[in-house]
Amino acid sequence: MRPARIALLLLFVATGVVADEGMWMPQQIPLLGDELRELGLQLDPDAFADLTAFPMGAVVSLGGCSAAFVSANGLIITNHHCVFGSLQYNSTPERDLLRDGFLAPTQAQEIPALPTARVYVTTKIEDVTDEILDALDEETSDLERAKQIDKRAKAIVRQCEAPGNVRCQVSSFFAGERFLKLTAMKIEDVRLVYAPALGVGNFGDEEDNWMWPRHTGDFGFYRAYVGQDGKPAPYSPDNVPFKPQHHLKISTRDLDAGDLTLLAGFPGRTSRLVTAEEVREAQEFVMPTSNRYRVALLEILEEQGSDNREVQILNASRIARLENILKKYTGQLEAFARDDLLREKERSEKRLEEFFSREPQQAARYAAIRQEFSQVLAGKRMTRERDMLYRWLYSASPMLSQANLLYRMSVERAKEDEERDEDYQERNWPRNESRVKRTQRMIEPTSDRAGFRWFLLETGHLPAGQRIEAIDKLLTATGREDVEGRVDAFLDRLYANTRMDDLDTRLAMFDESTDQLLARRDAMIELAAELRGLGEEIEDRDRAVKGAEYRLRPQLIAAMRTMKEGRLAPDANGTLRVGFGVVAGYEPRDGVFYQPQTTVRGVLQKDNGERPFDSPKKLLQRAKAQEFGPYADPDLGTLAVGFISTVNVTNGSSGSSALNAWGEIIGLAFDMNWEGVAADWVVNERYVRTIHVDSRYILWVMDAVDGAHNLMQEMGLPVHFPR
Amino acid sequence: MRPARIALLLLFVATGVVADEGMWMPQQIPLLGDELRELGLQLDPDAFADLTAFPMGAVVSLGGCSAAFVSANGLIITNHHCVFGSLQYNSTPERDLLRDGFLAPTQAQEIPALPTARVYVTTKIEDVTDEILDALDEETSDLERAKQIDKRAKAIVRQCEAPGNVRCQVSSFFAGERFLKLTAMKIEDVRLVYAPALGVGNFGDEEDNWMWPRHTGDFGFYRAYVGQDGKPAPYSPDNVPFKPQHHLKISTRDLDAGDLTLLAGFPGRTSRLVTAEEVREAQEFVMPTSNRYRVALLEILEEQGSDNREVQILNASRIARLENILKKYTGQLEAFARDDLLREKERSEKRLEEFFSREPQQAARYAAIRQEFSQVLAGKRMTRERDMLYRWLYSASPMLSQANLLYRMSVERAKEDEERDEDYQERNWPRNESRVKRTQRMIEPTSDRAGFRWFLLETGHLPAGQRIEAIDKLLTATGREDVEGRVDAFLDRLYANTRMDDLDTRLAMFDESTDQLLARRDAMIELAAELRGLGEEIEDRDRAVKGAEYRLRPQLIAAMRTMKEGRLAPDANGTLRVGFGVVAGYEPRDGVFYQPQTTVRGVLQKDNGERPFDSPKKLLQRAKAQEFGPYADPDLGTLAVGFISTVNVTNGSSGSSALNAWGEIIGLAFDMNWEGVAADWVVNERYVRTIHVDSRYILWVMDAVDGAHNLMQEMGLPVHFPR
Repeated sequence: MRPARIALLLLFVATGVVADEGMWMPQQIPLLGDELRELGLQLDPDAFADLTAFPMGAVVSLGGCSAAFVSANGLIITNHHCVFGSLQYNSTPERDLLRDGFLAPTQAQEIPALPTARVYVTTKIEDVTDEILDALDEETSDLERAKQIDKRAKAIVRQCEAPGNVRCQVSSFFAGERFLKLTAMKIEDVRLVYAPALGVGNFGDEEDNWMWPRHTGDFGFYRAYVGQDGKPAPYSPDNVPFKPQHHLKISTRDLDAGDLTLLAGFPGRTSRLVTAEEVREAQEFVMPTSNRYRVALLEILEEQGSDNREVQILNASRIARLENILKKYTGQLEAFARDDLLREKERSEKRLEEFFSREPQQAARYAAIRQEFSQVLAGKRMTRERDMLYRWLYSASPMLSQANLLYRMSVERAKEDEERDEDYQERNWPRNESRVKRTQRMIEPTSDRAGFRWFLLETGHLPAGQRIEAIDKLLTATGREDVEGRVDAFLDRLYANTRMDDLDTRLAMFDESTDQLLARRDAMIELAAELRGLGEEIEDRDRAVKGAEYRLRPQLIAAMRTMKEGRLAPDANGTLRVGFGVVAGYEPRDGVFYQPQTTVRGVLQKDNGERPFDSPKKLLQRAKAQEFGPYADPDLGTLAVGFISTVNVTNGSSGSSALNAWGEIIGLAFDMNWEGVAADWVVNERYVRTIHVDSRYILWVMDAVDGAHNLMQEMGLPVHFPR
Repeated sequence: MRPARIALLLLFVATGVVADEGMWMPQQIPLLGDELRELGLQLDPDAFADLTAFPMGAVVSLGGCSAAFVSANGLIITNHHCVFGSLQYNSTPERDLLRDGFLAPTQAQEIPALPTARVYVTTKIEDVTDEILDALDEETSDLERAKQIDKRAKAIVRQCEAPGNVRCQVSSFFAGERFLKLTAMKIEDVRLVYAPALGVGNFGDEEDNWMWPRHTGDFGFYRAYVGQDGKPAPYSPDNVPFKPQHHLKISTRDLDAGDLTLLAGFPGRTSRLVTAEEVREAQEFVMPTSNRYRVALLEILEEQGSDNREVQILNASRIARLENILKKYTGQLEAFARDDLLREKERSEKRLEEFFSREPQQAARYAAIRQEFSQVLAGKRMTRERDMLYRWLYSASPMLSQANLLYRMSVERAKEDEERDEDYQERNWPRNESRVKRTQRMIEPTSDRAGFRWFLLETGHLPAGQRIEAIDKLLTATGREDVEGRVDAFLDRLYANTRMDDLDTRLAMFDESTDQLLARRDAMIELAAELRGLGEEIEDRDRAVKGAEYRLRPQLIAAMRTMKEGRLAPDANGTLRVGFGVVAGYEPRDGVFYQPQTTVRGVLQKDNGERPFDSPKKLLQRAKAQEFGPYADPDLGTLAVGFISTVNVTNGSSGSSALNAWGEIIGLAFDMNWEGVAADWVVNERYVRTIHVDSRYILWVMDAVDGAHNLMQEMGLPVHFPR
């Protein structure tokens, strides 16, 4: 009975037994064994610490998305929005894979994914803390500390990647308390196997984005290919499917509120362990100020395209990105206000203080660290208006941003690789070159100038002591009296004397030395060079701050951990993590309860035949006829489509497989909920949920709608809707 | 435990045990005794049939609203929106009772309600069917039947009202199967006792209209006064409080999902027993066509006021009424489509057919009646475009509507009272005179002309055979060639030669004979006279249709009743009814469950300090401090504000007391829910709910916020928040 389960679940949440905010390192899972067993885990918790064992051996990263192997032949399941680019890339007006979906009837008919698509199979996690921090002590300056850590990490990565076919990274956990080296096999031949139609995989699109109840079939399949020797190799028709050590089974079991949900994936970045002072800075300065900039730039870009379709298209992706972050920050600010999250954070620091107050010596030490850290933050705040506006100059003008990239390439190329800024290390040159190419699709000089103009005028409002001197000097040099006149005169010259809008010119510049570049007398390159001085100054300051953070923050975090009796997950940093929780609804506002599961009835309610609510005809037919076979949920009495759980995620978790107590896939995570959007900062257990597509909906679409029977057979699943 | 109750409730609804679509006649309640006792009723079901006994003796009508006595001294509880007019009437800029609320500290300080306010205490219901239908048989023509019924009913009413101080009516039940005479004591001295601030009584206003979850404290108090002899009398300071035979007690008991809810009040009008063919006509013609007219007229009125505040104010109430009905019909059309209500209705007629098919003779008879009724409807449909547009001419031009009223007054006045159209009988003259006065506030000649123009042009599109000949003739007489030219020329003359915008002129006309009126040569009066011919034609046709309905419909309804084994409630007709059901939430769309109760947490969530979400400061203080005393709901852990039940209502039910199993007031009904808005036609038990304010919220506001301790003491309730 469904209602009985709602009851059970509310009880759980109320007592707080199962809500969990952790994105745990695999190695931490064994320590949480009792909790997990209590929630019903049937697997050995210790298994999660072994990345080559089941189930972690099946979990992979696509770089920005998470995924998992689901067959012995390298078949990979992830979100539709994670294979979206590959569908788009392979679509033509005659054969619109994006709109209609794609199913390769045989392996031979699987098609190459986006050229940049990669599958990363994490094979090893090693602690390199000693190596990284060796001989760095109280005597070491903060700047030096940051530089050394950076340099050592780069050396470890270089050494690690030397044999080839692997991607390595050194990541800091608990803000510099520990450093781990992660090694991943890098598979380059990735092929598109199957994705449902846009009206399934992207049902609801922007209108439903962040929203629950949700009815999106957000899933798709890739396959990893390797050379005949089993090693990663560039695309070749002779390549063979990769044989993973482990793969996951897709579940058809009943799913109910209260059921254990495990999630393994690569969450990007959270800020849950920062101080209340930093939350305040984000809430009171960073988000509102940057949102003001976003709104201004959005208005300009929309105005520019208001009567020009070509300009609209060129600006579309800039607008989409600005709007997306604007929406997220707006939601976060709303949640901050609604739940008084800052005060919550302050209260938790107060509790920490009280906790330590029993031991005067510890309390004094804790207070001293907090004070010193607070001074570091205060120092950084001194120039926050200037620093933020400086960075926005590059967002305002993609042409300036390109000039900066090219100028820095020339400067950094002259250095030893380990001395280079990470973004300009040799391993990243191909990425930078592709950025130069891709950016061409969003360069529109008139919009570029209009946006840049607004931000140049804004520099005039910077307070004394926070001036961008390079800009002040250039504007004064125009000889004009009034501010607008100066800016316009400067821009006239700037845009008349640059070729930064020309792709061939930029590609030619890509390999040039600084001297060659400057000899071109391109005004945008010259401006980028003029502005670098401040950039370096800010970067040095940030490096020193980083060094101080490396020194102080681990101690603050250790204090939290002590109070939490060791039960503390590090902030997300793009590395492999495991979260757990239960299937659970929530009350978004008084009088309204969001059920933990949605059903195909909602698809029929929302479907109006038009994008984004345009399910395929066959899906509608089958759904109306209630042809669900064994995929129907016995309690719901119909087909489940999505569910939410108390597990929590962030950008990068997309595509993560949600596992049940037996380690079977019960769904794929694909979104956070709107009410829980502030979870990157503070987790309010009442509201924070992850949105998943239910595995039985995936299988029903495969079986009854798209006839992906070949894949079902490959996964060892019975077919119930033969043609 | 709340969750457990949700479970229980869904179970109930699923099995259909307690959902009930009936607005039962009090006399029917004893027949439903077993059902009611099963739902927990502790009172004797037979008691409901006795209008002078408890609890029905306490239930009164305010004419358009329902209410109940709550003390031995004539104290009456109803909705805030039912005392709204009296608050407005007594407000001055210096003393804004509407905004701030009103509480009379003593009886002497109670103030007169609106002059038109009345309290009607139903004292008797008598069956007059025999008298009404005497000697009307198959030989009687349909027109004659309707005329006779009308005439006899008027005679009965005249005789009934002769002694004075009573209001009588003869109402048809089951579409003419039975006729009942209802006698009500008419109390004229009504005084305003107490109403909370607008930010309580009207919290959410239009934004929350029709909506659940709701947080409105929609309650207020009147008191009925009579002469010292205990008989109704006009206002006098010497009058004394009326002593009702019974009054109700306000409950402070816990309220839970699944609890029995009884509702006694005066629902206005429903069309649940009509045929599928009539539902189709409403869905396919009446609602969409009239909504098209509403949208057109709204656009014109809004355009007229777009740059003129005075015009805006004059048109405001017309706009509000148009929008209100537009919204309701839009919601109904949505629900028709969503729930496929027409097909549902057709299926139920099919079932009826099948039911009778077992007895061929009955089946043939039923089929014949259906066919004849269908022909009647078809006949009426022949001129439906013309008939509707004709009526809209008067809505389009309030000046024409006034001219029509005055012209018809003069024509009808010349007749015997019982020959007069009911609206023009002598007992309604004061009402008509007040209409002439009130209409002045919405007469704006330029808007009047603009709206009328659109509809005149529309008459040009009427098909042949459905022309409004009077209009065609007048337009042709302008001698102009083009349609627009004709209409404009006609309107030039019409508006130049009328004084219909002048109140004094209209009041002078009110008592004039037809000859006197026509001698004035007022163009609008002349137009009204020209148009009356078609009006009479339509009315005669409608009378014949009505006669046929009187003859046929009861037989169709009797068939339904047979199939339902006698368990059938008549359609609402403004008379006293009793409904019952249970407290129950619902699922408005997949994945969302609306809880059966809202709490004060929702008030705090919605309150933003601005109309319409502007709770009084004291309420916010008490709510934030969780000072709820014994009014808090033990399961919800906070103060309940509203609840929904499966009882169903319609316009006129507002203010009805919701009673628990012991006959105590657990709340006041004040709205239908958006998803259930089509319930006037077809009741979809999954969605149809009535919205109530919880009695404990009423008492908490009285006690803890407004200090209405005098009234609580009068009602015999303890005070928990002494000053």
